[in-house]
Amino acid sequence: MICRQTAKLPRIEKVKIYQESRAPNPRRVRIFLAEKGVDIEYQQVNIMDGDHKKPEFARINPLHRLPVLELGDGTMIAESVSICRYFEELHPEPALMGKTAKEKALIDMYQRQVEFNLLAAIAMCFRHQHPAMAKLEVPQVAEWGKANHDRALSAMIWLNDVLKDREFIAGDTFSIADITALVAIDFRKVMHIEIPDELDLLNGWHKRISGRPSSSA
Amino acid sequence: MICRQTAKLPRIEKVKIYQESRAPNPRRVRIFLAEKGVDIEYQQVNIMDGDHKKPEFARINPLHRLPVLELGDGTMIAESVSICRYFEELHPEPALMGKTAKEKALIDMYQRQVEFNLLAAIAMCFRHQHPAMAKLEVPQVAEWGKANHDRALSAMIWLNDVLKDREFIAGDTFSIADITALVAIDFRKVMHIEIPDELDLLNGWHKRISGRPSSSA
Repeated sequence: MICRQTAKLPRIEKVKIYQESRAPNPRRVRIFLAEKGVDIEYQQVNIMDGDHKKPEFARINPLHRLPVLELGDGTMIAESVSICRYFEELHPEPALMGKTAKEKALIDMYQRQVEFNLLAAIAMCFRHQHPAMAKLEVPQVAEWGKANHDRALSAMIWLNDVLKDREFIAGDTFSIADITALVAIDFRKVMHIEIPDELDLLNGWHKRISGRPSSSA
Repeated sequence: MICRQTAKLPRIEKVKIYQESRAPNPRRVRIFLAEKGVDIEYQQVNIMDGDHKKPEFARINPLHRLPVLELGDGTMIAESVSICRYFEELHPEPALMGKTAKEKALIDMYQRQVEFNLLAAIAMCFRHQHPAMAKLEVPQVAEWGKANHDRALSAMIWLNDVLKDREFIAGDTFSIADITALVAIDFRKVMHIEIPDELDLLNGWHKRISGRPSSSA
């Protein structure tokens, strides 16, 4: 297993992350921070009970989404990738978003491509087809959910091809692009979307990345 | 009009951007580079003729999307925001993606929120309802397009509220979040989505940002 052990930093005080332990987006941040060795307080918000949709949550995020990072001065930073970017700036090692201009651009590109083509496609299947989402996703458009099964499959085929000359999605080192892809690939299970056996590079990558200690964060 | 005049930098050689002058995503990059004063070669790819879908375009972007930046060493960087990030690293002034960790995180957050809630909603209306997209967006799910009219309106109401204590979307300075929002707001015209008159802060912001020379890029 290829994995760098990261020393744990002292817990950051007066800063916390509102999150939901079962949801995919907060998991992206937890894995990122585990790789950085950053210890922080997490406050659970129950999505399936709609706690993030309640009027009082607007103070934390007017768009009613999770996760949200609250800084010591009261600033609220929503969006998984933006929270990761904050910690990448504060704790640059290990670099998970690149060091040079070219690395930063390429990792950003792969992160976004995985996010839009794979994670978003699986999320659309879940939001528009899963009965548990009927009250949270209005209107549920089943036909759009169904169309996204094909989009998710196309994205897996593309990702398998990306991995033909490299160990990690954006190149020779583990990055935020691998985190987004791991969370997406694991999230597919809830919709019973299989990774085709013939995508051997993607299956091998998934096994390697799942073996990192951060994957259980 | 509040606008900084940016001196034009010498043309960057051996680097070019594949783009489509009528499409919203390439416009994001053109405005960004105009604000930076970066002069670069643009190569037109005709989207409505499906030139980006042709097999030979896979060499430039296997996901068949525009814009794509080609570097001198042959590296291809797709994704509007990733291309902008590359130039932000090379030409940090004027900063359009923040300077401190907190600024970078907040600008990233607003950029993403505008991109996912407003630009993507309008793009979904266009892709799933406009007859010109029937051959490029398969299947077109009209019901999903229709649902996105409401999502776009909600995002405009949210954005009007964001602007209640500031001149620009992410705070006191013009940023990439304003560029994404301008492109989204202008793109809505093709779907005849109106900005409600009562959203006076959004209408005022749109008039100010449209007055910057970069808006014609």
